[in-house]
Amino acid sequence: MNDTSDNHGTLQISRRKLLGTVGAAGATGLVVGAAAGAGGYAAFGGSGSGDGAALATVGAARVPFRGAHQAGILQPLQACGHVLAFDLAPGAGRKEAAALMRRWSAAAERLMAGEPVGDGDGGVARDAGPCSLTVTFGFGASFFDRTGLAPRRPRQLDPLPAFSADQLDPKRSNGDLWVQIGADDALVAFHALRTLQKEAGGAAAVRWQMNGFNRSPGATAHPMTTRNLMGQVDGTGNPKPTDPGFDGHIFVAPGGEQPWMTGGSYAVVRRIRMLLDDWDKLSLKQQEGVIGRRKADGAPLTGGTETTEPDLDKLGPDGSPVIAADAHARISAPEQNGGATMLRRPFSFHDGIGPDGAPDAGLLFICWQADPLKGFVPVQRKLDRGDALSDFIRHEASGLFAVPGGPAEGEYVGQRLLEA
Amino acid sequence: MNDTSDNHGTLQISRRKLLGTVGAAGATGLVVGAAAGAGGYAAFGGSGSGDGAALATVGAARVPFRGAHQAGILQPLQACGHVLAFDLAPGAGRKEAAALMRRWSAAAERLMAGEPVGDGDGGVARDAGPCSLTVTFGFGASFFDRTGLAPRRPRQLDPLPAFSADQLDPKRSNGDLWVQIGADDALVAFHALRTLQKEAGGAAAVRWQMNGFNRSPGATAHPMTTRNLMGQVDGTGNPKPTDPGFDGHIFVAPGGEQPWMTGGSYAVVRRIRMLLDDWDKLSLKQQEGVIGRRKADGAPLTGGTETTEPDLDKLGPDGSPVIAADAHARISAPEQNGGATMLRRPFSFHDGIGPDGAPDAGLLFICWQADPLKGFVPVQRKLDRGDALSDFIRHEASGLFAVPGGPAEGEYVGQRLLEA
Repeated sequence: MNDTSDNHGTLQISRRKLLGTVGAAGATGLVVGAAAGAGGYAAFGGSGSGDGAALATVGAARVPFRGAHQAGILQPLQACGHVLAFDLAPGAGRKEAAALMRRWSAAAERLMAGEPVGDGDGGVARDAGPCSLTVTFGFGASFFDRTGLAPRRPRQLDPLPAFSADQLDPKRSNGDLWVQIGADDALVAFHALRTLQKEAGGAAAVRWQMNGFNRSPGATAHPMTTRNLMGQVDGTGNPKPTDPGFDGHIFVAPGGEQPWMTGGSYAVVRRIRMLLDDWDKLSLKQQEGVIGRRKADGAPLTGGTETTEPDLDKLGPDGSPVIAADAHARISAPEQNGGATMLRRPFSFHDGIGPDGAPDAGLLFICWQADPLKGFVPVQRKLDRGDALSDFIRHEASGLFAVPGGPAEGEYVGQRLLEA
Repeated sequence: MNDTSDNHGTLQISRRKLLGTVGAAGATGLVVGAAAGAGGYAAFGGSGSGDGAALATVGAARVPFRGAHQAGILQPLQACGHVLAFDLAPGAGRKEAAALMRRWSAAAERLMAGEPVGDGDGGVARDAGPCSLTVTFGFGASFFDRTGLAPRRPRQLDPLPAFSADQLDPKRSNGDLWVQIGADDALVAFHALRTLQKEAGGAAAVRWQMNGFNRSPGATAHPMTTRNLMGQVDGTGNPKPTDPGFDGHIFVAPGGEQPWMTGGSYAVVRRIRMLLDDWDKLSLKQQEGVIGRRKADGAPLTGGTETTEPDLDKLGPDGSPVIAADAHARISAPEQNGGATMLRRPFSFHDGIGPDGAPDAGLLFICWQADPLKGFVPVQRKLDRGDALSDFIRHEASGLFAVPGGPAEGEYVGQRLLEA
């Protein structure tokens, strides 16, 4: 178990290892083969055996709902995702919001255990296990005014600065409440989405919704780094839970200005359209120059493997830097941004062909940090000004959400905010 | 091997068995663990071993491009799908269409083997195996006029009759050329889609595109019947390749009016929106009454298991039929439709929330038959008039395509049409 070190070590474990190793439940926060409760959907007996064992494992993999942090931050990328924002209904305030969070938490706990939610459960997830379902809840800045909780609004929710290249659609940005759903099965994810929409009842309505995906479990024997729709290896530079200071960078420490956020994190969500038709016109060499990494294996152009540090000072035969001054890998390197650290955990999206005839596809960029002014903002400021990649992407929507810590036994998510 | 009997027996094999059984390649038409060619993406060594073996199998599963029938008809449902239609460019005729089908076939063969397509391969599928990718090509009625091949247009491509409940969008219906893509990994499917769009070059442009999904491999230990977004078990009534007359119902026999269609099939494609908000207002009992089957296991309301024949004559204590006169299971039963037989192989779709605030979700219905007038049409005529389910669905788009037989060695798909 040298690749896990604490109770949120799943990030370091390749999906392949994770799924191949049934015994690591305690260390990874992932419960595999646990019998579902009475009335549960899962039809798997214990840890499984015979020819369906490894496959049943995909379905049976369960992420606990309760813990120091909410699920959906440190778990491996899932194959299917939904992110959506809700606005509270006119007239709904703190009381209705508290009741909603209580309902949503109860539903999320059952969904993540692979159990039906109430008599009206639609049954879409039936026959499957939890499939690593995670449900994550957050609050947008507007939530606090709507609920009379302005004094408890963290300064970290101050609006993100405007970036010069932004082309944001306000209708698909921000929102009072944010929900992130991830699962390794599309029907399980859809079922969770529909269930939470129904549980919203008259208290809140969907403001925007986006669907995304990552690689399927078992599609590759490689580690969990994925590829984005430009074909680049993605996630290489992510901090690891074993890195010094990881917790301090990603999670809100006890003793902060807003005690209810202890153990929580801030999510920046950006719908980043990729201009794939333009991108595909570049040669492989040009694409690698824009990124500063090799496409095949993600290694920096200065050599080594995916995990080798880029040598930003290295010069080529012509005396110019091997990794160009405007290469994405240089601009986004932590050492170029005062050590700014965020945990990126994206989904790709593909909504068909846009009105312009080009693919409406790209990255549902989601990053996590204890303070967006120290994580996302300094990096994006630099990318906005000088990133060669910016000719090939377009930020179309943006959200910033306070994601409270995980619920303790008997608590619902956000209870420390809403009932303190 | 008692669950396979011929060279297209994969349909009968549960996905679980299929993935758990590495040795059945010859009988199933699925090549597992085959080393990819030089330059191929797949990094798996042989049939795999150790903790990643079963998982590598998901990635490494390969469907042959060549054979008596095109791929994507008899293979198990894949987790991700794209269906799209192209129209030939103005001025493009038979010559350009032949060159396009040659390019597309060459690309599809490489994609399905998990190999990069040319120097400009975007690399999105890299690191994964073929993931059971299938690419299937068809021709719409308009193709034959555009290419001067009207005498070779099969009568089976005559327009489908109008159904009273249809609300078809012509912009998302029909088209000169049809492409169906399925794979067990979203990036592999997306890569195939983009590659084929690029290979279309100036010869054809996308007319419409739809994205769909089914259950992920390993999400359930159950057989390959899936659930649709209404939560119903789907696919129970499908004919099996071992059924008497299966080939005659599904594939065009030799000696027909259009020899180039020998071994081919006709695909009816319908975008069926589900009015899920209305559906979810019904009680479980009401939903089961509409369908005539139990939701939990798909068994008919007259008893038994999923595969038990419905007893359409059985009366309840009140003297009325247990399976109602307008129940979907009754109306669609082959014995109620002169033995009409089609092979349904759908994807679910979910394109977010529509302008009406309701989920834009439902079924990408795809069915296969040797003659749509003997397969789809008689069943849909009855459903259109008397199906209780029709209050909860809306046919929004429709296409009918002639899908030629699989290419022999050295051939491209459609060569017998375009070069005869």
